[in-house]
Amino acid sequence: MKTFHIDQPDEQLRPALIDKINNLTKPKGSLGRLEELALQIGMIQQTLSPCLTRPQNIIFAADHGIVEEGVSLSPKEITWQQISNFLHGGAGVNFLCRQHGFELKIVDAGVDYELPYEKGIINRKVRRGTRNYLHEAAMTQEELEQCIDSGAEMVRQCHDDGSNVISFGEMGIGNTSSSSIWMSCLAGIPLEECVGAGSGLDHKGIRHKYEVLRHALDNYSGTSEPIDILRYFGGLEMVMAVGAMLQAAELRMVILVDGFIMTNCMLAASRLYPAVTDYAVFCHCGDEAGHRRVLDALHAHPLLDLGLRLGEGTGAICAYPIIDSAVRMINEMDTFAGAAITKYF
Amino acid sequence: MKTFHIDQPDEQLRPALIDKINNLTKPKGSLGRLEELALQIGMIQQTLSPCLTRPQNIIFAADHGIVEEGVSLSPKEITWQQISNFLHGGAGVNFLCRQHGFELKIVDAGVDYELPYEKGIINRKVRRGTRNYLHEAAMTQEELEQCIDSGAEMVRQCHDDGSNVISFGEMGIGNTSSSSIWMSCLAGIPLEECVGAGSGLDHKGIRHKYEVLRHALDNYSGTSEPIDILRYFGGLEMVMAVGAMLQAAELRMVILVDGFIMTNCMLAASRLYPAVTDYAVFCHCGDEAGHRRVLDALHAHPLLDLGLRLGEGTGAICAYPIIDSAVRMINEMDTFAGAAITKYF
Repeated sequence: MKTFHIDQPDEQLRPALIDKINNLTKPKGSLGRLEELALQIGMIQQTLSPCLTRPQNIIFAADHGIVEEGVSLSPKEITWQQISNFLHGGAGVNFLCRQHGFELKIVDAGVDYELPYEKGIINRKVRRGTRNYLHEAAMTQEELEQCIDSGAEMVRQCHDDGSNVISFGEMGIGNTSSSSIWMSCLAGIPLEECVGAGSGLDHKGIRHKYEVLRHALDNYSGTSEPIDILRYFGGLEMVMAVGAMLQAAELRMVILVDGFIMTNCMLAASRLYPAVTDYAVFCHCGDEAGHRRVLDALHAHPLLDLGLRLGEGTGAICAYPIIDSAVRMINEMDTFAGAAITKYF
Repeated sequence: MKTFHIDQPDEQLRPALIDKINNLTKPKGSLGRLEELALQIGMIQQTLSPCLTRPQNIIFAADHGIVEEGVSLSPKEITWQQISNFLHGGAGVNFLCRQHGFELKIVDAGVDYELPYEKGIINRKVRRGTRNYLHEAAMTQEELEQCIDSGAEMVRQCHDDGSNVISFGEMGIGNTSSSSIWMSCLAGIPLEECVGAGSGLDHKGIRHKYEVLRHALDNYSGTSEPIDILRYFGGLEMVMAVGAMLQAAELRMVILVDGFIMTNCMLAASRLYPAVTDYAVFCHCGDEAGHRRVLDALHAHPLLDLGLRLGEGTGAICAYPIIDSAVRMINEMDTFAGAAITKYF
């Protein structure tokens, strides 16, 4: 399996970055999270003058065998229908990409439908949907490795094109179920605290979803190794996102982490390579039950809490201007000395 | 005194707006706060296709007599020094205005310094700082009315220039003290819960600030009428902001409410004309103690919580892209019918 070389940013630069931020014309700390972000991005890029170039959002899409068990309110065909909508520019992710200058890539990781690739969808289909993990592993080891490789390949292309900041989204009816199981296994959180409404289940629907997932976990006889959990319960689009995140960290890119699914992909990535979180900006706490819990497990304090639960990368892209503000702050604000202002703290 | 005609938006349009938002290609409610904002702005503008034009940020600046009592860590000269910094483009508010396309106006409401008006500062100086309200009223009735009028005039100019969305900021060493007293008197919150660190007081400094303000309130023999509270304890820049907010609501503009000071100005405006809050988007909950309390008193759920405490309008401008996203959402997203997608909720 592909290995990644992910190092924590060199600590040597930290004092100089802090000093620069503290001498901008404002009371110390008064720009709050912007100051933290400027420090983090300066550390990632190892410079006192960080910059953000060519932001990209990659949506990985796939179907899920577990949907046969009635764990989702939405029918499976929504996956490919929404992909068509992404292509036409009418989805939630599209207006946000246009607003904030993101390039959008759509990758078929395993949709159970023949998509119109000639229209620009990137075909990395591993298989037409996962197997149903109530009864068997969602994917083989070979399929998992193919996902990791393809995710990494997508990110290398972005990096080659000059991108140093990237967000990931997903489209895959049924993927809150995989996420809940990953989260429970990888962060040791009781399953009932990990299961939520997805695209709109009622109380009874959530109960049924929980019973199915509980049953799937009871049937599981594999190891508790993260890679085995990913393989048995994973979504193809989710494992591809894990590979993408690891590659992005190796390339020292800023990783914007979106909602519930992507937070769980970052959790999974961090169980393989802990240093990956140094490159992660957690952008949004969504409405899905359990999202706050997995963020806590990652000691993450997301930038936004706007009640979004759409996926597609929307929460990450919504947060981008704040990250951009942080970079502008450290580059564009005057220092007390430069502006001849009494340093007032 | 100038009166304003502020009506609540006509309710007739609400069902059509909700219907439009619910038929966009996403699970119902899945764009959370963006959906609420689109509804609010559609109601303010009375249209199914709202738009935002020429955003402006007006900073009102003034000095405060109460600073003589040692209630602020920062010396009074910071007020005019920071105004110079705004002019040179090196302050926090500047990079945010540039980032989000805001025009910036700086209004001298009562700075205790002769500012270089030829450089673009708008001179509406009422007097050189307020009187010290530990001993006497901060301003006369005539001065208060002059503030209200000038604030309203500034907003009418913006509106005439084609602006329909506006934020207000402030610069005035000592104005967290006025804000704390307004908040305590106008929302009935115990003074000790209203007093905080300002630009960086320590525990002992906060205690002293509280004692001074407690003493000022004990000395006060006026009525509990909001207008009397505003006059006696007000900052000139704060009363000017109140006049500006009222004028903006009368003109059906979207009002972006910044941090602790501006939230208290909105509180004051709402005590004069309750319908003003229908036009307000609360943008940020800052770090100043008491900010959450006054937001609660206004039943406000601000968009951001980034730990900012700089003022100048920075929290409001940081939130602007989210408000812009909401408007783009309702205008740019496809409907289920238009995109031929199964409506999945």
